[in-house]
Amino acid sequence: MLLYDSGVSGNCYKVRLLFAHLGLAYERCELSVVDRSNRSEVLGDLNPALRVPTVVLDEGRALAESNAILWYFADSTPYLPSDAYESAQVLQWLCFEQYSHEPNIAVLRFWLHYATSPPSEAEMASKQAGGQAALQAMDRHLAGRTFFVGERYSIADIALYAYTHAADEAGFDLAAYPSVGRWLERVSTQNGHVTIDA
Amino acid sequence: MLLYDSGVSGNCYKVRLLFAHLGLAYERCELSVVDRSNRSEVLGDLNPALRVPTVVLDEGRALAESNAILWYFADSTPYLPSDAYESAQVLQWLCFEQYSHEPNIAVLRFWLHYATSPPSEAEMASKQAGGQAALQAMDRHLAGRTFFVGERYSIADIALYAYTHAADEAGFDLAAYPSVGRWLERVSTQNGHVTIDA
Repeated sequence: MLLYDSGVSGNCYKVRLLFAHLGLAYERCELSVVDRSNRSEVLGDLNPALRVPTVVLDEGRALAESNAILWYFADSTPYLPSDAYESAQVLQWLCFEQYSHEPNIAVLRFWLHYATSPPSEAEMASKQAGGQAALQAMDRHLAGRTFFVGERYSIADIALYAYTHAADEAGFDLAAYPSVGRWLERVSTQNGHVTIDA
Repeated sequence: MLLYDSGVSGNCYKVRLLFAHLGLAYERCELSVVDRSNRSEVLGDLNPALRVPTVVLDEGRALAESNAILWYFADSTPYLPSDAYESAQVLQWLCFEQYSHEPNIAVLRFWLHYATSPPSEAEMASKQAGGQAALQAMDRHLAGRTFFVGERYSIADIALYAYTHAADEAGFDLAAYPSVGRWLERVSTQNGHVTIDA
């Protein structure tokens, strides 16, 4: 199995973290998240969105979008509940992550550390407000809970951990979200956990 | 069953379209997409993102995020493939819709028709470029295909139809995407189809 990967991408880290828990073997092909000039050539036939992560399965079929990859590999494992309502709740949080969380926190982190041209102050302020709203929603939900769904560690936690644990690199002070802080600690001490730079 | 709804929201239309195909009965509670001042009061305990659609199931449990709602109700019906790889491909397109399509095309449509304060030209241009890239990716994928996954109408088509069929309201000329145009016609002639204003 081949993972088109980026060592600094939280979206790719999600996949590597689940693969580590599952003990799956795979090759990594590193693509730059800054110079994307070769994306059409490398990913054109594999992923219409030309993004990493993209996985090529052993039989040669491709799968893209980090959260779809998580779902495919977590199905029928302890990382995705078998109950229909609980699995739909996991998917609800995966959608929240891609719509309300990643576009704010991941994009701010990218702008601050990797972008070649800086965005406007208005764009920065909009992403900061969106990221704060996402972290507040998570903190409210996690108050009195150990994990996002069904009191069990799942791909909902893996997906949200990826950029939340790096939110300080996007300029967010996680001390303002104490339930999120305790949950981050809980995730990072799960059996088989690996760090983003592993 | 109760659907917190908006008649003009494509995200809500996705759910109503699937419910029509499945013949499900439900009540609608209309929320404004412009005046959101009552969102915490109405949705605070149901959906951490305070967005519509939010569904309250018959047993009182809530589910949010349009694509998670589609998945929950389509599971074990003809609208979601039972094959693991095909269902992962459906989820890939649902993720694409929420990350690369809706934030550009739906947001531009909102700005042009419903927003009370206009965005900057730079913001408009960024959304136009993102929307064109999404429509191009769809058009390439649909060339030689009838539907997005497995040559069968699924919730991938329902999710992408919602804002694509209204992309002209966001300023996009769909004549530039002929495969998308033929697919829109195919979707709109499926048994049980309803329009956004039904």
